[in-house]
Amino acid sequence: MKTYLECIPCFFKQAIEAGRLITGNEIIHKELIDEVAKLVPEFSLNATPPEMAYYIHRAVKKKFGDKDLYKKIKEKSNRMALELYPKLKKKVDKSSDRLLSAVEIAIAGNVIDYASENRLNIEEEIENLFKENFVNVGKTVFQYDDFRDDLIKTNKILYLADNAGEVVFDRVLIEEFCDEKEVTYVVREKPVINDALQEDAITCGVDKIARVISSGVESPGTILKYCSKEFLEIFNKAEFIISKGQGNYEALSNTGNGIYFLFRAKCPVIARHVGAEVGDIVLHKG
Amino acid sequence: MKTYLECIPCFFKQAIEAGRLITGNEIIHKELIDEVAKLVPEFSLNATPPEMAYYIHRAVKKKFGDKDLYKKIKEKSNRMALELYPKLKKKVDKSSDRLLSAVEIAIAGNVIDYASENRLNIEEEIENLFKENFVNVGKTVFQYDDFRDDLIKTNKILYLADNAGEVVFDRVLIEEFCDEKEVTYVVREKPVINDALQEDAITCGVDKIARVISSGVESPGTILKYCSKEFLEIFNKAEFIISKGQGNYEALSNTGNGIYFLFRAKCPVIARHVGAEVGDIVLHKG
Repeated sequence: MKTYLECIPCFFKQAIEAGRLITGNEIIHKELIDEVAKLVPEFSLNATPPEMAYYIHRAVKKKFGDKDLYKKIKEKSNRMALELYPKLKKKVDKSSDRLLSAVEIAIAGNVIDYASENRLNIEEEIENLFKENFVNVGKTVFQYDDFRDDLIKTNKILYLADNAGEVVFDRVLIEEFCDEKEVTYVVREKPVINDALQEDAITCGVDKIARVISSGVESPGTILKYCSKEFLEIFNKAEFIISKGQGNYEALSNTGNGIYFLFRAKCPVIARHVGAEVGDIVLHKG
Repeated sequence: MKTYLECIPCFFKQAIEAGRLITGNEIIHKELIDEVAKLVPEFSLNATPPEMAYYIHRAVKKKFGDKDLYKKIKEKSNRMALELYPKLKKKVDKSSDRLLSAVEIAIAGNVIDYASENRLNIEEEIENLFKENFVNVGKTVFQYDDFRDDLIKTNKILYLADNAGEVVFDRVLIEEFCDEKEVTYVVREKPVINDALQEDAITCGVDKIARVISSGVESPGTILKYCSKEFLEIFNKAEFIISKGQGNYEALSNTGNGIYFLFRAKCPVIARHVGAEVGDIVLHKG
């Protein structure tokens, strides 16, 4: 997906958020914003949004060093999600279509990146989603039948992770097929926002049911040109790819690899791009 | 009011909106955004937000010439508001406190700048506000008693306008005191966004009940250092000032002139600054 004009104000919001995690000093926040502003004229709208996010977070690192700013937030998300895990498993066990229920859970978990600071909200959100079996949640783009049919035919799954905490929700889905299929779970190489790293996969128990690897990138989206050679070899041979979150959709929607994109549509630009409404849970083959 | 970090993404939104009114060409939109990005490092957070808006719209003008981009939108707003005028007058006539009702109407009209494109929304919005006499509308900051008591004591009123269309709602308020008091109605010198000009005051009939003058500024807020000498003389001598809209509040809240600010709190930054909630109608003496 290219970058839309509406993404530009959002880049500044990201920089403000990152700056505030580092310091309460507004003069430094403004310096960081000035750095981002200097990047804008050099940035082409033909690049994907995670690429700009990559430059922004590189500017943050250049200014403040290579810190994992969102570490505490990620640890909290993991803890909260692990507490929810038994409840999520029960939902799947009670469901008449286990796979559908697990898919819905995995997408529901994608809500974590904007709710990680508020325990009540995540629980309420998840509870609301499950009330009446996701009946009230928009599913304008939800190619579940294709997903199920293609999944049956494959033995190997490449699963691109998104956020910490959300990993537990991914685990619920992976547990539905990891006994018969070989699953490779892909995390980011280095910290960026609250994106999942190797340590999050381990904390959330995904290392026990899947091979955990890094894509080599430190951008909030799997930008292929920044991925490691090792990851690209696996990616190019993959027959069934599950891609979680908006960032991975933004980075990979143009590849035409028949990837299954699972995410919650949180921004109007992405919702419009995929043909869904804001708030929808999306399962899109693209 | 100083500029807050959250204002910066909004500046880019304004530039995108202005660019789209000029052309459908995204390359040109990006060029305009790049110009705005170059302004950011030079801009101090100690300046008021309308000052940055002033620079942005100057960049727009430099690039595209001195066009009145929002002319059609303003004409439509005036037309729609004039159609509502008899209804608004009836509301005042039926009210047990005519002045309060007229004040509420004047503030309600401040909704126009973000709803000007949707007739139904304005009518619905106004209808909702009047249902149960504004009972359901937040009035966290609403110094009506002071306003009424101070108004009685004065003979001269300086009224700073905000948007086209909204001028009709101002007229309803001015008509409550223009028979006994001398009213000066202040519009912008040159077009900026959908802010009211001399021609809007005339179209909406305010020229018949008040002396209409320009502040000399072409920023979306009365930035005193850009105002004309003639306006400043009047402003500095004024004993009772009504200031409409967020832009004028942002520009004048630090003057300590005992100005009555009437606006709808539409953005979280301004709501926080004045101590109100987003959506509230605000009557603040400051």
